[in-house]
Amino acid sequence: MAAFAKKVYLELPKPDAADFAAGRERVLRALPEKAVHVTYDALRELYPTLPDADYCVTVTLCPSDTGWDLIRIEPGDTHDALYGAALDIGSTNLAMELLHLPTGQVLCRRECTNAQVALGANILDRIFAVKQDRENLISLQRLVTDDIRALLDACLEEAGLQSDDIAAMCVGGNTTMIHFLMGCDPWLVFQKPYTPAFYDPGIQPAQAMGLDLRCNILCLPAVANYLGGDITAGLLMTDMDTRDDPAIFLDIGTNGELALGCKDYLLVGAGAAGPALEGGVSKSGMRAEPGAVCRVRIDERNELHVQTIDDLPPEGICGSGIVDLIAEGYLAGWLNGDGTLNMGASARIRMVWEDESHANIPAIVYASRAGKQLYFTQKDIAEFIRCKAAAHTMVATLLDASGITPDQIGTFYLSGGFGTHLNLESAITVGMYPDLPRETFMILGNSSLAGAKRVLLDDASLERIRHFVQSATYVQFGEIDTFLENMRAAQFLPHTNASLYPSVQPLKHD
Amino acid sequence: MAAFAKKVYLELPKPDAADFAAGRERVLRALPEKAVHVTYDALRELYPTLPDADYCVTVTLCPSDTGWDLIRIEPGDTHDALYGAALDIGSTNLAMELLHLPTGQVLCRRECTNAQVALGANILDRIFAVKQDRENLISLQRLVTDDIRALLDACLEEAGLQSDDIAAMCVGGNTTMIHFLMGCDPWLVFQKPYTPAFYDPGIQPAQAMGLDLRCNILCLPAVANYLGGDITAGLLMTDMDTRDDPAIFLDIGTNGELALGCKDYLLVGAGAAGPALEGGVSKSGMRAEPGAVCRVRIDERNELHVQTIDDLPPEGICGSGIVDLIAEGYLAGWLNGDGTLNMGASARIRMVWEDESHANIPAIVYASRAGKQLYFTQKDIAEFIRCKAAAHTMVATLLDASGITPDQIGTFYLSGGFGTHLNLESAITVGMYPDLPRETFMILGNSSLAGAKRVLLDDASLERIRHFVQSATYVQFGEIDTFLENMRAAQFLPHTNASLYPSVQPLKHD
Repeated sequence: MAAFAKKVYLELPKPDAADFAAGRERVLRALPEKAVHVTYDALRELYPTLPDADYCVTVTLCPSDTGWDLIRIEPGDTHDALYGAALDIGSTNLAMELLHLPTGQVLCRRECTNAQVALGANILDRIFAVKQDRENLISLQRLVTDDIRALLDACLEEAGLQSDDIAAMCVGGNTTMIHFLMGCDPWLVFQKPYTPAFYDPGIQPAQAMGLDLRCNILCLPAVANYLGGDITAGLLMTDMDTRDDPAIFLDIGTNGELALGCKDYLLVGAGAAGPALEGGVSKSGMRAEPGAVCRVRIDERNELHVQTIDDLPPEGICGSGIVDLIAEGYLAGWLNGDGTLNMGASARIRMVWEDESHANIPAIVYASRAGKQLYFTQKDIAEFIRCKAAAHTMVATLLDASGITPDQIGTFYLSGGFGTHLNLESAITVGMYPDLPRETFMILGNSSLAGAKRVLLDDASLERIRHFVQSATYVQFGEIDTFLENMRAAQFLPHTNASLYPSVQPLKHD
Repeated sequence: MAAFAKKVYLELPKPDAADFAAGRERVLRALPEKAVHVTYDALRELYPTLPDADYCVTVTLCPSDTGWDLIRIEPGDTHDALYGAALDIGSTNLAMELLHLPTGQVLCRRECTNAQVALGANILDRIFAVKQDRENLISLQRLVTDDIRALLDACLEEAGLQSDDIAAMCVGGNTTMIHFLMGCDPWLVFQKPYTPAFYDPGIQPAQAMGLDLRCNILCLPAVANYLGGDITAGLLMTDMDTRDDPAIFLDIGTNGELALGCKDYLLVGAGAAGPALEGGVSKSGMRAEPGAVCRVRIDERNELHVQTIDDLPPEGICGSGIVDLIAEGYLAGWLNGDGTLNMGASARIRMVWEDESHANIPAIVYASRAGKQLYFTQKDIAEFIRCKAAAHTMVATLLDASGITPDQIGTFYLSGGFGTHLNLESAITVGMYPDLPRETFMILGNSSLAGAKRVLLDDASLERIRHFVQSATYVQFGEIDTFLENMRAAQFLPHTNASLYPSVQPLKHD
């Protein structure tokens, strides 16, 4: 397993009367690699490094689109001091790992909020901001590169390294995020003819983006508009391209991206699930931040208990809390299969005023703070059920398209922040995931970052990603006749066809 | 004959449901070239150019070290609007031509003084300035890039073009000048072990040097320290690599660089001639600038006539004037074969005071200005004869080394400012050039610029240059036992062996 970038220690022959090759030519002829460009930065290091180091030097090679860039010349043997940065650019958060490439050791891991939220909390807002004023494109790029610079600085400082020590950087991010990073307008990601500037931006010099690094940046290529480099990074973390039995990959949040495949085929698809899955729908819904209710349990005495992130006083409820609330509520008989609330099932089920509809509507008051009720309304529940039905139906549709049944799935990979923090039982109870043996599920976490890291550590990974990109069949859910019908059938807890969910037993129901 | 850079007009298929390739991938798959990197600048043009132009676009491809850089995407068919800049960076002057590559038409030609003279009139001064303070390296680079920027701006303005229109730039310059351009310390050009940072800096992005161009810059590779890209450019302008009979290339000035070859072999050499050849020795010697005596004639009435550059009042004498003065003086009997002045031969031969030796010494007063005598002393003559002997001996030595006689030379190419402006008869009379049939000589002018231009217009030229670099045998004059002896024999007008100069007949001698 070879790292994406490499260092080569060279004991060059010293010049003499019979061998007066100049520095660059002396280095190049000693390398087995043939398509090598000595960068401007490295060119300027040839002298005095070569004579000062008695012609024993270590060169750093970073891949380019067409060969190798020789980006650095250091005195002596430093081949073990090979470092790279893996980065996930999410629309909400950025995460970086600084890696020692020969061992894979994570020297430092840092995260930050994506400063682009200043120009729009969600991706579409940012895209429209660019449409309104092209200056915003420059701002969005600067915001994310400022973030990256800050993450880099923090990681480098913690590890005691310099920016010159970074031999390569690999980025996972969705198509829009990578467009913003490259300063490219992503308008066509979401607009006809749905052909953005690129799925693969190619390997670009970090300096082009104003980053003070010698190395090049590889952004993992996308399969399609909605299946970006974050998803191909995720696929890399599955064994989908080598296994005999089919596996599913699902990254569910406001949008769902998913794949189903084995060594013989790869089906991919993407679609909107809805903000309800990430806490973005109800009045008290919120992102998974400190103070968010992230766990809900209804005990055998019909009492509701909540847990918040960092155990702070509750401020709202995030996606995993919502899934728990619906699942536990359904199991406890607080709500019926169609999502309607049973007013008498708990004192927590009350009528609350809703400004929008100028009416009192039923709701579950799941917590209170400073005398103020935090509740989840009948309407929120209905919206959630539509979202979970979308997630269910996307998976079911890929299964249909491949002609296999859920029980044939060998592994069901769950990716992304929502998938990671979700209570698996609850997600199955509400019918968001299929009712498979629990050991079938495997949680990948931030697989965009993990995939970027994998590429840095193993240069064969990029070929695997390119294989995913080449071989994927894109299933357009919008063009499947039965999609909406199937989605309607899934708008029930756990499903209108209860036989699909044998393990979900609302014991407490009458 | 294909230009070094190219433009390709593409009528791309428009996206549809069956073909949703993104912009970059759509362009790349349409190109026959495989090793193509879409630059950051070009990436950002994909949208909206592609849809706005209805997917009919022209892409510009500029060679890189490892393939092609796709540097620009323009709407419509602009393939004929392909431009390049050829540049000669001399230690004293820069010259640029802006070219229309498809036709070879010169749209504009500009020259300027190399602003680096502020840090040293000659190359060694500048190298020592860098040794003293490395900040001077940055200054030298900035001075030359400022010059280039000014030349470019002037050329572009005259031609009505933009900097983005430049698809490639090709530079001829000696090894030190290219080191300064790249911001590399050229110390080892002149110091042991005489292996500078590079002979070939590779193809570098213009932006790395702070030039606001999209294109890459090719600096023609050197053969050796003293045989830089200016000389390989010059060799390109000869037919040396294809001809059956041998040819000589000579670029003589303060230093001499020369080559002798045919399709079967190539000998190269370089050495110091001396400042006398470029007017840099006598008190009144000067560069070939307005007011310099550039032509001298002694008529049948023994009267001396001078001509100055731009017909201004004489201020001094430049190289071509000196060669005329010595040749005409010798032919008129003013000076003997050993260079001694005949005091009675003309009233212009007088004793003049020389501060340095605190004595009156003989001199030719060739002109006067504002009552002040302009003269060339016995000592200046002796120095000149040493210089011309060096030039003669370098040529003779290459001939010796190849085992051929002067009469076998098919063409004797003269390159450089001095070689261009020199009176050929005078140069032969003083014994600087061999006494060959006059039609053997061919004046190349600024062959560094011409060679750079040739590479831009004909991409096969670079291979020819690389062949020169690969195949050249470097003759080190310092290691040839007979060199100094031969040089002594040449310190006579025209030569101690008069039979070598049958056409030189000092008729006016007694």
